Amino acid sequence: MRIVDIIGKKRDGEGLSEAEIRYFTSQYTAGAIPDYQVSALLMAIYLRGMTREEIVALTVAMAESGDMLDLSDIVDYAVDKHSSGGIGDKTSLVVLPLAAAFGVPIAKMSGRGLGFTGGTLDKLEAIDGINVKLSEAEFRRIARDSGLVISGQSASLAPADGKLYALRDVTGTTASLPLIASSIMSKKLAAGANGIVLDVKTGNGAFMETVEDTRALATIMVQIGVDAGRDMVALIADMNQPLGVAVGNALEVAEAVKTLRGEGPALFESHCIEVATQMLRLAGRGERWAEADETRAAVMQTLRSGAAFDRFRQMVADQGGDVGQIDDLSRLPVARIKHRVNAERAGYIRQVHAGTVGRATLALGAGREKKGDAIDYAVGIEVHASVGDKVVNGETLMTIHANDEGKLQRALDVLAAAVDYSAEPVNPLPLFYGMIDGGEV
Amino acid sequence: MRIVDIIGKKRDGEGLSEAEIRYFTSQYTAGAIPDYQVSALLMAIYLRGMTREEIVALTVAMAESGDMLDLSDIVDYAVDKHSSGGIGDKTSLVVLPLAAAFGVPIAKMSGRGLGFTGGTLDKLEAIDGINVKLSEAEFRRIARDSGLVISGQSASLAPADGKLYALRDVTGTTASLPLIASSIMSKKLAAGANGIVLDVKTGNGAFMETVEDTRALATIMVQIGVDAGRDMVALIADMNQPLGVAVGNALEVAEAVKTLRGEGPALFESHCIEVATQMLRLAGRGERWAEADETRAAVMQTLRSGAAFDRFRQMVADQGGDVGQIDDLSRLPVARIKHRVNAERAGYIRQVHAGTVGRATLALGAGREKKGDAIDYAVGIEVHASVGDKVVNGETLMTIHANDEGKLQRALDVLAAAVDYSAEPVNPLPLFYGMIDGGEV
Repeated sequence: MRIVDIIGKKRDGEGLSEAEIRYFTSQYTAGAIPDYQVSALLMAIYLRGMTREEIVALTVAMAESGDMLDLSDIVDYAVDKHSSGGIGDKTSLVVLPLAAAFGVPIAKMSGRGLGFTGGTLDKLEAIDGINVKLSEAEFRRIARDSGLVISGQSASLAPADGKLYALRDVTGTTASLPLIASSIMSKKLAAGANGIVLDVKTGNGAFMETVEDTRALATIMVQIGVDAGRDMVALIADMNQPLGVAVGNALEVAEAVKTLRGEGPALFESHCIEVATQMLRLAGRGERWAEADETRAAVMQTLRSGAAFDRFRQMVADQGGDVGQIDDLSRLPVARIKHRVNAERAGYIRQVHAGTVGRATLALGAGREKKGDAIDYAVGIEVHASVGDKVVNGETLMTIHANDEGKLQRALDVLAAAVDYSAEPVNPLPLFYGMIDGGEV
Repeated sequence: MRIVDIIGKKRDGEGLSEAEIRYFTSQYTAGAIPDYQVSALLMAIYLRGMTREEIVALTVAMAESGDMLDLSDIVDYAVDKHSSGGIGDKTSLVVLPLAAAFGVPIAKMSGRGLGFTGGTLDKLEAIDGINVKLSEAEFRRIARDSGLVISGQSASLAPADGKLYALRDVTGTTASLPLIASSIMSKKLAAGANGIVLDVKTGNGAFMETVEDTRALATIMVQIGVDAGRDMVALIADMNQPLGVAVGNALEVAEAVKTLRGEGPALFESHCIEVATQMLRLAGRGERWAEADETRAAVMQTLRSGAAFDRFRQMVADQGGDVGQIDDLSRLPVARIKHRVNAERAGYIRQVHAGTVGRATLALGAGREKKGDAIDYAVGIEVHASVGDKVVNGETLMTIHANDEGKLQRALDVLAAAVDYSAEPVNPLPLFYGMIDGGEV
């Protein structure tokens, strides 16, 4: 088998066999095939596409390029969730404790953020002392003892994906559905889940801007999971406006805690309840929580009871974090400057542009422009208005939390175009545009 | 300007500007852009194509990536010819002395062969002592003093092409018309010619197998030359059967010398006369030799007079070669074994498969399978039959010149399928399928 022949087949629009896909994936990971040959192949894949069979073979080959986490000694049936990310998306911080409160053990490997705001791990690190770089032994111990742990991905998890992702990033081959879907799903397959809920965002603050493209990506990911023997469901969730009020790491931790206490913003709470409901449906496998409506009611009750909050608090303690900051949210990192952005006129909110809010948050220092950049946990934006809200002139729409006058000014410049008004009533945005069930692909 | 943006434009089917093409070509040559980004761009070019403007810009950028040979102090108007190569193609050895005999100074940079048989330089090296690695000073001196010199390309001639060609070879991006055409023409532009005759082969022994593909490639090359201010003509020449009788380095030198003495095979002589006629038409620029028919007659007379042979002999002497081997062809390298291949039946020759004869010659050791392989100058095949010939059973069709019984056997195995017969008369193959004139593209 020669890599140049494999490149030639894909270049000419032919399908690659499972053996060919496994060959180039494993040989590339081992350093036996150089970057310049794989980048030519990636461009051919970008322009020629891949069949479902090829995508599944690529995903499985990437997953098996490193360690395959086996959680079967800890969990009968492991449930995972993946969010494609977005502005103000702190869903994991709420739904994982929620599922754990139902007795579903959660051993979650998560990623860091690259983009507007931090990832789940970055958000958690707003809490003093918390360790999200657990050894596999610590990770397993906490999962076994407490049933809830969140830690960073081991470098040995799907190393082929890490190498291919870095190469795609510099060769114009990121925006390919087969390559995006296989990249995400390879890590999920390697992380040991039996059932996976995908929370795929769509809109101007998401990677995929149209519902059509997002549905196509979600469908491929669900197909991969199903073909690899997993139970799958994908939700297509709105990301045209920020999710919840808080955008920024410490602000989002605080909002997650409030939501876990039943005091969160209504739209964000609804989003979390739906994601958690789908996780429990998969975990129940038709026995417990099979009916979504019943599950939904139980999930709401668990939020209100404080049981989910207790699980979160326990996790922070297990991972060495300062639970005092969770009990008293005012002890989380606080920014020096609070600046209000007020409505310039009366009317109905037609748009709170998520992408623009994201760029403004990045300008404040809440996220990373490139790998390794430092994050300011305290800064961020609270967005008090949602599409459809009626506002009066001078009403506060946003509160900017900043640590630097210059950065505040940059954020304000960016935000100038974020909000749009209408004289006529405007319908609120839907939370979800649809669901793709693993049984139907 | 960022290479990843340039890759993205071509990936999406957009045209690249001259500035973008110049940027990536010069930066890649300088080592400032890595192979893995350029290979992704090459695949995008392969699949998306290039416009005439883009191809010209790429060719000029590659030509200007190194030294541009300036022959204006030696030659008023420099004429060059390029052959796309083929089996038994020793045309340069005949047409360059022919043109020189007409007082057209020839300072020719040529390449080595990679494939079935050696290139022009390899053929010349069958002559003892000849130096085809002249310094630029020697090259210029011989050109000025004698008006005919053939030497290897300086490494500083179109270095971008050398780097890109090596990368294309290992990334499945060789067979792209824009990339093939710009690669060939970049070296021609850098080599200082004002007028260029392209002798483009088509058929089973050529890189391009169909007349249609060959015409497309030739047209692009003529367009590049014209847009870069050169006078251009391309001949589309047959390469379904070997060109001439001799295939193999010393055998081809001997055949070239015979042809220069007016004793060459008729079809090969006709081929050379046509190529030389076009070179003289360009060199005359409408003043001398403007009429092809008159020129053709003058060329034939110059062959018969021995004037062209005298120029070749002088060139061998100027470059340190043993002219005794030219005067007495039996002193050229001779193979130990001569093996005849005879007709298996009576009939008309329907095919003498050039590609097969080429592979058999390679098996004998006359060419290189990879860069740096040693060449056996003595070995090769004489092909006595042409398509359309009437043969009797047992008549000698080929004479194999070998130095090794094992290699002879390999060559015979390859040749088993080379010749095909017909009971009915068969038309001879045309020498040419057409001509593309620079004034008409």
